[in-house]
Amino acid sequence: MSNEKIPSRSENYSEWYNQVIQRAEMADYSPVRGCMVVRPYGWSLWENIQDNLNRKFKATGHVNAAFPLFIPMSFLEKEKEHVEGFSPELAVVTIGGGEKLEEPLVVRPTSETIIGYMYSKWVKSYRDLPILINQWANVVRWEMRTRMFLRTLEFYWQEGHTAHATQAEAEEETRRMLDIYAQFAIEEAAVPVIKGRKSASEKFAGAVNSYSIEAMMGDTKALQAGTSHFLGQNFAKAFNIQYLDVNNELQNCWTTSWGLSTRFIGAIIMTHGDDQGLIMPPRLAPIQVVIVPIFRNDEEKSKVMPVIDQLKTQLSDFRIKVDDRTELTPGFKYNDWEMRGVPLRLEVGPKDVEKGSVMAARRDIPGRDGKVILPQSEVTARVKELLAEIQANLLQKAIAFRDSHIFEPTDYEDLKRIVAEGWAFAWWCGDPACEAKVKEDTKATTRCIPFDQPDGHGKCVVCGRDATEKVYFSKAY
Amino acid sequence: MSNEKIPSRSENYSEWYNQVIQRAEMADYSPVRGCMVVRPYGWSLWENIQDNLNRKFKATGHVNAAFPLFIPMSFLEKEKEHVEGFSPELAVVTIGGGEKLEEPLVVRPTSETIIGYMYSKWVKSYRDLPILINQWANVVRWEMRTRMFLRTLEFYWQEGHTAHATQAEAEEETRRMLDIYAQFAIEEAAVPVIKGRKSASEKFAGAVNSYSIEAMMGDTKALQAGTSHFLGQNFAKAFNIQYLDVNNELQNCWTTSWGLSTRFIGAIIMTHGDDQGLIMPPRLAPIQVVIVPIFRNDEEKSKVMPVIDQLKTQLSDFRIKVDDRTELTPGFKYNDWEMRGVPLRLEVGPKDVEKGSVMAARRDIPGRDGKVILPQSEVTARVKELLAEIQANLLQKAIAFRDSHIFEPTDYEDLKRIVAEGWAFAWWCGDPACEAKVKEDTKATTRCIPFDQPDGHGKCVVCGRDATEKVYFSKAY
Repeated sequence: MSNEKIPSRSENYSEWYNQVIQRAEMADYSPVRGCMVVRPYGWSLWENIQDNLNRKFKATGHVNAAFPLFIPMSFLEKEKEHVEGFSPELAVVTIGGGEKLEEPLVVRPTSETIIGYMYSKWVKSYRDLPILINQWANVVRWEMRTRMFLRTLEFYWQEGHTAHATQAEAEEETRRMLDIYAQFAIEEAAVPVIKGRKSASEKFAGAVNSYSIEAMMGDTKALQAGTSHFLGQNFAKAFNIQYLDVNNELQNCWTTSWGLSTRFIGAIIMTHGDDQGLIMPPRLAPIQVVIVPIFRNDEEKSKVMPVIDQLKTQLSDFRIKVDDRTELTPGFKYNDWEMRGVPLRLEVGPKDVEKGSVMAARRDIPGRDGKVILPQSEVTARVKELLAEIQANLLQKAIAFRDSHIFEPTDYEDLKRIVAEGWAFAWWCGDPACEAKVKEDTKATTRCIPFDQPDGHGKCVVCGRDATEKVYFSKAY
Repeated sequence: MSNEKIPSRSENYSEWYNQVIQRAEMADYSPVRGCMVVRPYGWSLWENIQDNLNRKFKATGHVNAAFPLFIPMSFLEKEKEHVEGFSPELAVVTIGGGEKLEEPLVVRPTSETIIGYMYSKWVKSYRDLPILINQWANVVRWEMRTRMFLRTLEFYWQEGHTAHATQAEAEEETRRMLDIYAQFAIEEAAVPVIKGRKSASEKFAGAVNSYSIEAMMGDTKALQAGTSHFLGQNFAKAFNIQYLDVNNELQNCWTTSWGLSTRFIGAIIMTHGDDQGLIMPPRLAPIQVVIVPIFRNDEEKSKVMPVIDQLKTQLSDFRIKVDDRTELTPGFKYNDWEMRGVPLRLEVGPKDVEKGSVMAARRDIPGRDGKVILPQSEVTARVKELLAEIQANLLQKAIAFRDSHIFEPTDYEDLKRIVAEGWAFAWWCGDPACEAKVKEDTKATTRCIPFDQPDGHGKCVVCGRDATEKVYFSKAY
């Protein structure tokens, strides 16, 4: 904890990101390359994300369970695309209890295979379907270049895995979960996202179709914030997930999987953060309101502290923190809580006590414009209103920023200029070769083919052939 | 799901345990040797345990975080006893991203070492203390003989790790957390436990003192249901967890660790279960009340279902389930929910509707004695009362069973007889040789030296020398 300046976002976005995470005590580097330690403040945000998603999952009939961390290597090999996609990034246990294992065990990079195996045991008849299970778990992918929250060897996520009797039901589930992610991102995290289909080259290894929510970060790069996959019968066939239908005939199931990870914390940081540090969306903030008592001597303290105690009672429905550290100045504390992104700060000094008021400072509006005087008697209702206003304002700001950085290229040269500083929304013929050319020339990839499409058709921005769909091209995390 | 009989506990306790877990869909065997799949019903119990403990941990100032799954092998070697204790049971990752690792990574068997390393980075001054962090995590110990929930290669637990400025504070923390475990076990799980100190040979590898809560299972074996360790300065010295005190002098911290795992689910199963299956303590039960509608035709159905809907509203504060499966008879459903141990069943048929009543069946009292007729208008209050009665009755039954299976041996031969069918509470001189002799002769181990000790002293039940403490000897899971 210190009050030194961090680099501004325009100076060095990447350094800003790393330092804000450290200084806000969200996470720390670990002694194991590429793994992170999620500190209590960061984990508390993740717990709020978990609570929120769990409620949404349960409301749509899903239940939680826990499947093993280890997967036999042979399981991954049962689905051809799957093993090709994941084998370069595996961590492999070869020794157990002092002895070399006959079959190496993979530390799960994702759990379609082992869950598929269990579903094949559990599903007998159409009456056993659908199976709608989610798990909160740690997974490991051996990444070479890591960034805290965005890409780490070990990360935390939820992975939903469902099995259905019909294709239509499985496709509906895939879209339902994508909608839940989008609703969560927009309403709870104030992260505006665009829903769409991934291109064939960007889809999940083993899926028929992958869908994602894509968000724009403060440096205009894209971040894939959640994915939902329609797996067709690929895993059902590989693992014999079969059921007897009403006519007593054996059928293959249709399966889906969908996940949202601690990466989403990176999305929150880079969507809302400013040069003073983090800005937490109130609905997910670990601390929604910080209260700072201000006094210079015991006499002032004896006036101020009873009001603080009263505020604690009045605000007990909120996630609050009273900063009563004695060795620090109020100014230091303000900077410290601004760095951590607490949405609302209440200051109470002797003059406030006399006036029966409380000074509120909004984290989303810097300086005097963000200051509001609240009558102490109305503090509960006013804090509720202010938090809702902050939540709405963060979303509006993020939408405005995003929309002012999306451009429609007139030609390929224009696309190249655009993806240097934003997203290009362009006609694409669907040919992977065109996608590959853009990536090679600009490092930008197709993010998603959004569900919202203009009418008609146009010319592919790369090759000029006829195109029926528009796609977002951009650099991405 | 089937309604076949399971073996009775007296026939084959071990088979009863395995089958009840499978049939109640608590867990299943996995394709990875020694690992289990915790199914939704079992995981829901674990989530209730988590919620409950989290509230208790937070109320005592603890916060959650997440530390890496992988630990460099060299870390474990820094604390001599620790590495000796754990090295035979390690799972080791030797390959990452297709390449052999320079330093193998251990899949954490427990996290004192990596957390100690991080604390040494975070603690600078006495102002940074205490650190009171918990994590909910999966850990791996390469066990050769495994049993679902009781001993699995991978298991789930919480591990608290705290660092303090003084020995007294760390010792107080160690005992506080043991008290929390005991309170949780007794009040929430209705599992009566005895608190005490572990003998030197039974303590945690690296601890100065280990404390445990010990419970008696239905076959009179003991189960260590939670442990709390005073680690002294062992890990602080191994990892340089040091702070500057008020006089600006460098001091070593004092640390503790404490854990409770999915083993506890085994304790719940074996404390309360009967020959019909599980009995869930109401305060933790995934489903507290199951409602079974009874009708033979559409006319009866049209009478019964509106009452069911009303009950759903009246009982919305409870964890309820309406079993409206159409293909099964009420009798089948009764057996099914008895197997799963739902504490209270409500039956509603056309006659109940006419009388304005509901038939309640208590899971803890078999047959007619457990049946109670409730006026529908009072159902909310009466269900609340009944659940509290069931909770209290389960605890009383478990205490009575335990106390009737604890005996004080008159001599060594008597001890041998006793540990064949219960616990022996006996004077012990404290010599590990006496403890080892008992183990060799009877397979019984010292469970704990309880805090509740009789006055005075006696003669060691093994060697006859003077003894100042009594200890519990028994076979254990």
